[in-house]
Order: sequence, then structure tokens, then C-alpha cells
Amino acid sequence: MSRPRVAIVGASGYTGAELLRLLAAHPGVTISALYAARSAGQRLPAVFPQFAGRLDLPIEAYDPERVARDADVVFCALPHGESAAAAGALVDRVRLVLDLSGDLRLHDPAEARAWYGDQVPAALLGRAVYGLPELHRERLRQARLVAVPGCYPTASVLALAPLLGAGLVARAPLVIDAKSGVSGAGRNPTAGTHFCEVGEGARAYKVGGVHRHIPEIEQELGGVAGAELRVAFTPHLLPMTRGILVTAYATPTDAARPAAAYAEALRARYEGEPFVTVVDGPPDTAHVRGSNRAHVAVAVDGRVGQVIAMSAIDNLTKGASGQAVQCMNLALGLPETAGLDLLGVFP
Amino acid sequence: MSRPRVAIVGASGYTGAELLRLLAAHPGVTISALYAARSAGQRLPAVFPQFAGRLDLPIEAYDPERVARDADVVFCALPHGESAAAAGALVDRVRLVLDLSGDLRLHDPAEARAWYGDQVPAALLGRAVYGLPELHRERLRQARLVAVPGCYPTASVLALAPLLGAGLVARAPLVIDAKSGVSGAGRNPTAGTHFCEVGEGARAYKVGGVHRHIPEIEQELGGVAGAELRVAFTPHLLPMTRGILVTAYATPTDAARPAAAYAEALRARYEGEPFVTVVDGPPDTAHVRGSNRAHVAVAVDGRVGQVIAMSAIDNLTKGASGQAVQCMNLALGLPETAGLDLLGVFP
Amino acid sequence: MSRPRVAIVGASGYTGAELLRLLAAHPGVTISALYAARSAGQRLPAVFPQFAGRLDLPIEAYDPERVARDADVVFCALPHGESAAAAGALVDRVRLVLDLSGDLRLHDPAEARAWYGDQVPAALLGRAVYGLPELHRERLRQARLVAVPGCYPTASVLALAPLLGAGLVARAPLVIDAKSGVSGAGRNPTAGTHFCEVGEGARAYKVGGVHRHIPEIEQELGGVAGAELRVAFTPHLLPMTRGILVTAYATPTDAARPAAAYAEALRARYEGEPFVTVVDGPPDTAHVRGSNRAHVAVAVDGRVGQVIAMSAIDNLTKGASGQAVQCMNLALGLPETAGLDLLGVFP
Amino acid sequence: MSRPRVAIVGASGYTGAELLRLLAAHPGVTISALYAARSAGQRLPAVFPQFAGRLDLPIEAYDPERVARDADVVFCALPHGESAAAAGALVDRVRLVLDLSGDLRLHDPAEARAWYGDQVPAALLGRAVYGLPELHRERLRQARLVAVPGCYPTASVLALAPLLGAGLVARAPLVIDAKSGVSGAGRNPTAGTHFCEVGEGARAYKVGGVHRHIPEIEQELGGVAGAELRVAFTPHLLPMTRGILVTAYATPTDAARPAAAYAEALRARYEGEPFVTVVDGPPDTAHVRGSNRAHVAVAVDGRVGQVIAMSAIDNLTKGASGQAVQCMNLALGLPETAGLDLLGVFP
Repeated sequence: MSRPRVAIVGASGYTGAELLRLLAAHPGVTISALYAARSAGQRLPAVFPQFAGRLDLPIEAYDPERVARDADVVFCALPHGESAAAAGALVDRVRLVLDLSGDLRLHDPAEARAWYGDQVPAALLGRAVYGLPELHRERLRQARLVAVPGCYPTASVLALAPLLGAGLVARAPLVIDAKSGVSGAGRNPTAGTHFCEVGEGARAYKVGGVHRHIPEIEQELGGVAGAELRVAFTPHLLPMTRGILVTAYATPTDAARPAAAYAEALRARYEGEPFVTVVDGPPDTAHVRGSNRAHVAVAVDGRVGQVIAMSAIDNLTKGASGQAVQCMNLALGLPETAGLDLLGVFP
Repeated sequence: MSRPRVAIVGASGYTGAELLRLLAAHPGVTISALYAARSAGQRLPAVFPQFAGRLDLPIEAYDPERVARDADVVFCALPHGESAAAAGALVDRVRLVLDLSGDLRLHDPAEARAWYGDQVPAALLGRAVYGLPELHRERLRQARLVAVPGCYPTASVLALAPLLGAGLVARAPLVIDAKSGVSGAGRNPTAGTHFCEVGEGARAYKVGGVHRHIPEIEQELGGVAGAELRVAFTPHLLPMTRGILVTAYATPTDAARPAAAYAEALRARYEGEPFVTVVDGPPDTAHVRGSNRAHVAVAVDGRVGQVIAMSAIDNLTKGASGQAVQCMNLALGLPETAGLDLLGVFP
Repeated sequence: MSRPRVAIVGASGYTGAELLRLLAAHPGVTISALYAARSAGQRLPAVFPQFAGRLDLPIEAYDPERVARDADVVFCALPHGESAAAAGALVDRVRLVLDLSGDLRLHDPAEARAWYGDQVPAALLGRAVYGLPELHRERLRQARLVAVPGCYPTASVLALAPLLGAGLVARAPLVIDAKSGVSGAGRNPTAGTHFCEVGEGARAYKVGGVHRHIPEIEQELGGVAGAELRVAFTPHLLPMTRGILVTAYATPTDAARPAAAYAEALRARYEGEPFVTVVDGPPDTAHVRGSNRAHVAVAVDGRVGQVIAMSAIDNLTKGASGQAVQCMNLALGLPETAGLDLLGVFP
Repeated sequence: MSRPRVAIVGASGYTGAELLRLLAAHPGVTISALYAARSAGQRLPAVFPQFAGRLDLPIEAYDPERVARDADVVFCALPHGESAAAAGALVDRVRLVLDLSGDLRLHDPAEARAWYGDQVPAALLGRAVYGLPELHRERLRQARLVAVPGCYPTASVLALAPLLGAGLVARAPLVIDAKSGVSGAGRNPTAGTHFCEVGEGARAYKVGGVHRHIPEIEQELGGVAGAELRVAFTPHLLPMTRGILVTAYATPTDAARPAAAYAEALRARYEGEPFVTVVDGPPDTAHVRGSNRAHVAVAVDGRVGQVIAMSAIDNLTKGASGQAVQCMNLALGLPETAGLDLLGVFP
């Protein structure tokens, strides 16, 4: 086939910019058009100066007719609600739609309605493949509509799935203490993203089981465990731009099991995975910054009978845009690592 | 009595500097001498330029004879091991010794030996009062030797003690996910405190029940609960200078208890406490920076039956030097808030 | 006289919060009322959680009648334009008005109009005393209306005035390269204060002689030099919350003058000044954080015949609210350092 | 020819890591060996965890025999002094040596001795080509020994060379106010790189014409201007990991020249340059983070007759390792942008 043309709808946010960073260097696709509401009419470097001299594309007002005509692959990086609408309008008219919002991630319409409200297009839910390649690689190869996972679910599921899948930890209680950089809140300036309000401070938010990423984590970990489960999930905001760190606490199913068994389960599960690395020490978000890689590790606290599973990802890369590109590669039959072979920018 | 003269042994570290910041403005005591090993012979502003033009004291080599002669109150802010030795040498020769190391915090000599090794002077352990005024105020009024609590224990105990004390949460499991700024690692430059290694990153450390603050937390929470207990404790390093944030997960003793009961327990317990404030939203370390105040809060996750107790302190102030001054005030019969009436430096 | 009652108009911004931090611990005045537009009706801790448990005051809608009735001293910390209007309405009805905006800082109405536009109340300009105690202490003792200097002018003038005043450097060229923390941009969230936009980056802004602080610097340095002068001034935004660092480049009037003469001039000029310290090495904004102190220093580059004058202040303290309190102390006949005897919060 | 084999001597520092990040994805060369003193015997991911799962190479003790046998291209990223020794030992035995230290950058042996001392191998100086492609592209195509420029000189020269070269600004005075991230100080932990010492602070260092990058700037700008010149250069340390920002102040040769002429000169000079982009607003180091691109701009202050030239680079990429790879590409006859087509990691 000819080289696929790729459009980004919602190009002026951080996940849009990260898609552009990755796709501009992608060997198998061509960026054909960028769409954004507020910055329509501007050129990309005026919105994101890091592209000056390198990617001087116009930003246009979103027009589904034009998108359908000029693109084979569409990334929807719009706010929740809007994104599903765009995905629904395009899915039958282009070869592949990848939706980075939360709209299409839950399979159960009742759950989707409960957490996201009426705007969820129930008819689409059944068509979307959940875009976590480590769990759904084969289905992604056939996908025409991909629901790209959230940043917290990606990190949480990668840390816990091998342990639950191998029956090494119980389905309850599962405590997930998650920490995020500020870019997860998007580019809109708010009190919660003001440098002076978040710099040199740390705090939890949406405490008490109310974050929308919870049902997504439960759906995927439940699928792996083969039975429904619930997680106690608390997100935190840290004074850094990129990164998700997950520290998850679980109970061993066999208190006498040797500690080494847990790390072995991680290594066995992720052997050959191109973007998941089991590390020896605790993962650090600084070591995956700008990379599509997840670092995972596990430790055991024998005194209290706890397994501590940890993961670090870049929320904009493996937690959003990099994972979206990984899914695109699978769905287009390209090498899974095409355009994603980036090393973390450290220091 | 005449105005007490105060000496600091170990004045060239961060807790030493924080003691100086507080004591220089203290209305009831006079700083008489500073001691430090490596910077002996220098003047204070050469070691800590923030004191230039304001506190131009000489730093001397530690000499117990001179300390005993020239000071009524001694703060020992030396490394673990050394600190207890100094405290032991001085306790019978001055009016009050406050030890900021971990050496004297555990009452049980076996525990102390297990976690701190042979250097622990067992004979002293029984004489030291654990310096958390919110739990041991009356004993502190009579104290001549104070073991100033660790930063993590202060934050952990303040968050959980009211709930355990009122029997609202079970003694197990108790998961404490704690996050610290870099100043907790001290002023010695290491790979783990290099700006480029910790900036823009987050990670756990000492995972698996091995941090020395664990027995201290268990001793104090066990005392409040009236029975032994164990905690799953995981510390994290965040890219900020000051602050401890604790997010603790516990199980309600009565699943049907209304959510409001937990916050009420906190408010009841801390009513009248000069340095603990129950806040409505999640506490933020930025809001207590430079202050001796602890912000605590609690939330309930009804979906999974979890109570989430949270606290934020400044690790150098309420987590170390400020708390030490608070203990000194009690032991000397001064107003408890003397010299500590500082508001957080925010932003 | 009875203890003066102090009101703050514009209490919900960062300079308002800093005024509160200082005035809450001030031994000679009482905070009587807080006014703010958007947060009227809320209590202070809802707007600034650092005051929770410590300063639970209501915030009211601004009403000049009430202010005039209930306050002896008024700090106006409103946006430029609005602030002068409030100051004008109050100056004849209370004992002392301190305006933290730029509205009243320029004596020359033509200059004020050129840089600030029509909203400048020309009639007031002549009544306002420029609130830099190091230059205008005696006039401030009689002041009823004080124009509190800008952060950049404070740092720039303190660095250069002793050299110009002693005739050690020429009036031209004067290059001032100034660097500011983000809090100088205020609390309103904008693209320019978003954590992810300013974190880990540095840039100049308002380049080319267009920043409104320029005429203020020229007025004050010209006054010291005894002749008109112009400065090349470039402000920069740095990834930190507080602090102004000024690096100023000037030409010696005598190329053969020994290097030590410049530092001697600084020391001679600032001897006895309570809030200016001449330091040996380059000043660091971290060492004056949260303090009303300015650190100044000077170096000579003999190879190229340049004098480099440097200063570091906290933009919210000596650069705004602390200096305002210092001026208030002078105008009320209180000790100049009352309420300002704070040491920098370092680290 | 066959694919060149590349060795890195001094692989355990930040410039070594950045070389590895770039070379691992380079399409035209193969990394053959890594050498480092202290970490010899370890594998790369133990020293730099960002390479875990991606580049699992051994680190060996430096052995010139082995290097000469197993590599065609050698990057020397050793401390000053050591680096030149290694370069001297290898230059006649391999195809290309690129030295990232300052040892070989000055052509004049007397200058080299004056600034770097006796360890400078004078015999080598004449053979080294100064590795700034924008000035010396043709000579670099023939080079066998490249002295890779310093970070400050790269940023300074790129900002000022077009203006001096076109005769638009005078050769004196030239004031260069330069700001650097902390990674420029290397990976060794010191007081000056401790997170708590540099976080939230800004300061100048090596003030007064004493930084070793000064003669390098003068050599290159003098070459462009066609006559000797001297610069007043002051470096600053900022609380960020990567980035150099240069703000340079010069005097127009014709006060009546229209402001647009300066930007036109920059655009004309850098047209077609693959890694220099003239931007409209002030450059920001955040926009070139992780990229080999320089952003340059110029503004005019008509009030005082000053031209302000600005540039932003990533000190580890265009300021060191990226530029070294660019030079390698030229010397090997590869496309100049090979392996360097990275977009900045923003946010």
C-alpha cells in the first residue's frame, strides 16, 4: 500500500504535540493535516515553538469531510466527550481511528454512563479495542477503532497484571498509590497548573475512589484475573512535568512463597515485550522521560505480608501518544517499534 | 530563672540551619554556641549564607566540657550513632538535651539493636521521652532528654493516631505511602541528591519494610491503639526540597459508619492543638513550607471500604527542628508556640 | 496612640498573601480587614490554605467607606490602574496608604503617562514618596502616601546606587540583565505561568527597552547620580517561584582604580542598613527566600574594563510586601525592622 | 566502506550518556565499546538506568590499544587534561577523534597555556578543527581531530557571529550574560549540584572574566569579525537540568539602522542551516530540550542604542554531544543530520 497519511484532531494540546514529535520522525507514515479549534489559522510553530524550523504545518479548523478525504489514520486528541463524537463520525470513513480520550475505553455501557455521563456513544463502545498492546496485541492488529488507555491505567495495569494473571496476589485488597506530573492536567492554564501553586509541593487529589480512570483499571485487571475486582486508587500531583509513578500494594496468595517468585513472574510475562523492562531497583520516572518504555519492578515486605508492585512511565508517551503510535503500528501492520525507538532523555 | 543558653551540636547540616532560623527569632532563649566537625573554625555565614548580616556566630569543634559549661540546653543534630553518644555525655550535665537523631527513639532495646545496631546506648533509651507533643505533652514538660521524632513518623502518626485511637480503623492492614523532599537526605552531596538525578523524577526507595522509621511508627501507633501493630511503609523521593506527604490506607472497623465520622474524629482529637490543623481538601506540602504546622485530612472510599488518612508537614520544621523547639518550650516551661508562630512561606 | 489597624485591599494575590504572612506576626499593628474582588465572601484559608488554623479572616468586597472607617493603614495590592484609584480615594481619609502597584512611582507626569497611559492620576504623583528606605528614609518617616517600588527596580537600584553615587562607574552604558521567579507574574493562571511551560526553561521577555520598570530605575539611579541616565534593561523568567537576581554591567570611571574599591563603596554605603548585606561571593536568590534582606556584591573584570554589580532579593518580600511593611514601620514611627526580622528559608 | 565502529571514552558522565542516546539511534554507525574509569566492569544500565532493556553494553577500563583496534571513531568525553592525552594517543591510530573537553579548542598555544595550564599538548592544537559546523563546515569534512566546542561558546557564537560578521555591531563592548542548567557541572555530586542548594535559586559564578570558555568565544568571534576582540562574560547557574540561554548586549555600528536589519542578518546567515532556527520571540531553552537545534533571535533597544542577541540550546546536545555527532557526520561524509533529527521534548 502507499504510505498512510495521518491527521491529528486536537493538535494544540500536549498529547497532540507529543504525537507530532513521534510522527514527524516516523519512518512509515506521513503527517497530512492538523486540526484544532482555538489555534485554527495559525501555523504549528506559533503554537508549539519546539517545531520551529522543523515542522511548519498549518493548523486548520476541524472538518470531518476534509479529514475523511485527506487522511487514512486519525488520532483524536480532543477533550472527553468531543473526542468520541469525532471518532464516531470518522470510524467508517477512514482506515483507522485512535481515540486518546476516555470516552471509548469502557466496554460496559452502564459503567461508561456511570463514570462519563450521557455523552458516551454506546454504539461505539463495542467496536473499540482497548489499546494496551501488552494485553491485546492480537486484537489491535485487526483494529479499526482504538481506545488508547489512560496514563494511570497503563502504569497500574503493567505493574499488577503479571501478578494477578499468575495468581500470585489476591484480588483484594488492591491499593494503588499513583503519582503524576503536571502535564497530565493538559495545557489549559488553571490554578492547579500554576507554577507557583504546584512547584515545591505534593498533594493527593480526587481522593476516595472518584477518579475516572478507576473503572478502566478494574476492567483490565479484572480481565487478567478472570474475575471482577475493585481497586483503591489515589492520584497525586507532583512538581514535575512528565511521568507517572505507580506504587501498588497487594496481598500474596501464599505467604510462604519466596520473594524471588514475584520478579520472576514479571520477567516471564514481559520477556520479549519491546516497551516494558523489568528493573532491579525501584523505577524512576526520570529514566523513562520522553521514551515509550515502562519500567516495572516488584518488592516484598515479609514483615507485613505485602507485595509492592511499581511502575514508571512517561504519561505523554507510553501513557498517551507513544502508546497510540504503538497501536497504530500494530493496526497498520508496521513494525511495532517504528518511530518509537527513542531512549529516555536523562538527565 | 535567667534566659536559657542554647547550644547546637551539628550546626552545619540542614536541621542545624533550621534550628538556627527558629532560635534566632525565639523570644525566650539565647544561642550561645555552635559546634560542627568539618566546618569548625568558620563563621556561620560562610557555611550558610542566608545568615549573612544577621547571625555572625563562630562554629567550633565539639567539646563536651565547653558545651556543659556554656549551655543550658543542647540540641544534638549529629548523624545517627554519634548523636546518641553526645547526648549521653551531656544529659547529666545540662538542663535539657534534645536529640534529633534516631538513636534514642525506640524504647525497646531489642528493637533498637535490631534496627540501629550496636551503637545504640541501651542505658539511655529508658530516659528519653519521645518528642511528639500531640501524644506525650505531659511527659515532655518533665523531660531532661528528648528523642525528637523522625519526619516520616511525625507525619504518619499525626494522620493515623486519631483513627486508631478512636477504634475507627483496624490495626491491620495499614499501608503508608510516604513522599519526601530531598532535604530529608541531608546536606552531604551524593548521587541521590544531585539536582539532575532527582529533578523531574519520582521514585520509591528502601522498599519492602526496611526503612528505620518503621519501628518508630509502629511503637507510637501501637501505643495509641493499645496493642502491637505493623505497618507497610514505603518512602518515596520527590523533586522538591522540603515536605513530607503521607497517604495512609486503612480499613474501617465498621463498614456502615458514615464518612463524616472520620473527619470528626480528627477534629475532636486536634481541637486546641497549636500546630495541627484539620483541612477540608487534601493537604499540600506547599502550604506548610517553613512552618511548624501539620495539615491533616481524611477521606473515605466507600466502593472498596478504605479510609485514606493524609498529612503534610515540612520535614525540617514539624518533622525535625521545629518540633525540637516545641519540645524545648514544653520542657522549659515556656509557651509552647514561642518562636514557632511562623506562617508557611507560600508561594 | 492605640495600635494601628491595617487593611489590605487586594488580599487574594501573592503580594497580599505575603503582606498577611508578615503582618500576622507583626508586633505593632493589627490586621483589621481584607478586601478582594473575586474572592469576596470567602474566608482567607479557602483562598490561601497556608493560613488554615492560624488566620481565619473573612474577605470582603472593597468598599472605600468601610476601609476609611475601619483602618488606619491601607495597603493597596491591586492591579495597576485600579490601585492608584483606590489609593487616591483613601489617602485623605486614613493615616497612611501604601500602594504596591506601579501607578504612583514616577514623579514626572509625562513619564507616567508615557509608560502607564491615561489612568495615571497625575495629581497624586507629587504626594507619593518612593518607598525605598535605603534612599528615602527621612522622607518616608513623614509619608502619608507611599509608592512601594517594583521588584526589579529594588534589586537594580540597590546594586548600582552606591557605585553611581560615589562616581565609580559611568552613567552610560548601563546594562541590567535581570532574572525573576514566576511569582512576579501574579496568581492569575496564564500560559506564561503554567508549570509545564516554565518548568525547566529560561527565557527573556519584554526585550528591547519596553518593561515598565525601566523609567523607575532611571528615575532613582538618575537621582543618585545627579544627572539623567538611561539603562538597557532585559528581564528574564526563570523556573523558580521567588527571587530576583540582577547582574548589572557598568564601566569604571577610572580604569586604574583597584578592584577592592568597588566592594568598599558598597560596604560603606550599606553599613548600618538593616536589610542590605554585602556578601563576598555572588549573591544567590535562594539565600534570601522569604526574607526582607537584599544580598549585594560587586566584581571587576579587568580584562575588559567592566564592573559587575549583583543583587538578590525575594521579589515578594524586599521586592514588594516586605518593603511595604518596612515603609509602614518608618511612617508610623515603629522600629524599622518590626515584623521583618525573618531569616531566609534555606534550603 | 563498512559501517564505522564508534567508541566512547568517558561513557559514565552526562555527555557520554547523551552521546549514547544519539548514537544508539544513529543509522550510519555502530557503537562498539564504552570506556570509563570508575564504572569499569559494570554494564551500562547499572550506571544509566534509562538504557535498561535497550542498550546493555559492558563498560570497560580504558585501554588505548583496544580502542585503536576496535574502533574507527572515538569520542573522548573525559575531564579536561585527561581528554587531550587520550585524543593525542589515538589520533594517528583511528580514523576520527572527537574531543569534547576544552583541551584542544584554542589555536594559540600561549592562550591555551594561560587558561588551561601545562597539561595542554601544544603539538596537537594545530591539528584540531574547531567543531562548530556553522563556521567551519568545510574544514570539518576533512577533519581527523575535532575539538568539540563548549556549551557557552556555542550559544554565544551562534547569537553574535552573524551580527559581527556583517559589521552590524561593534567589536566592543560585548557583554554576554549566560545562564546554564545544572547538568553543565557534570555528574559528580558536589555542594554546587545538590538539589536543595540549587533548587529555587539563581546565581552568577566565576564572575569577573575568569571562565575558561572566554578565550574560545573570543577566538571564534574574533575570527568572524576579522580582528581581535574581548568579551565581558558572566555565567549563571539556574534551577533546571538542561539548557543554555545567552543574552548578549552589543552596540550598533550605525545608530540609524532600522531594527529589522538585525533579524534579517540572522535569517540570511542561517538560511539552510539544519540546526539553527531564527525565532520571532525570545528563545526559550525549554523549546530545544533534547534537540540539537539552536534557537536564535535579536531585538533592538532604540532608547539606549543596544542590540540584544539571544540564543537557546540544550547544553548536552547542541552544546556538546549532539554537536559532536554533527561533526562526526561531516567528517565521515554522512548526511549532516543523521541521527540528529530529534524534536525537542516539550513539555
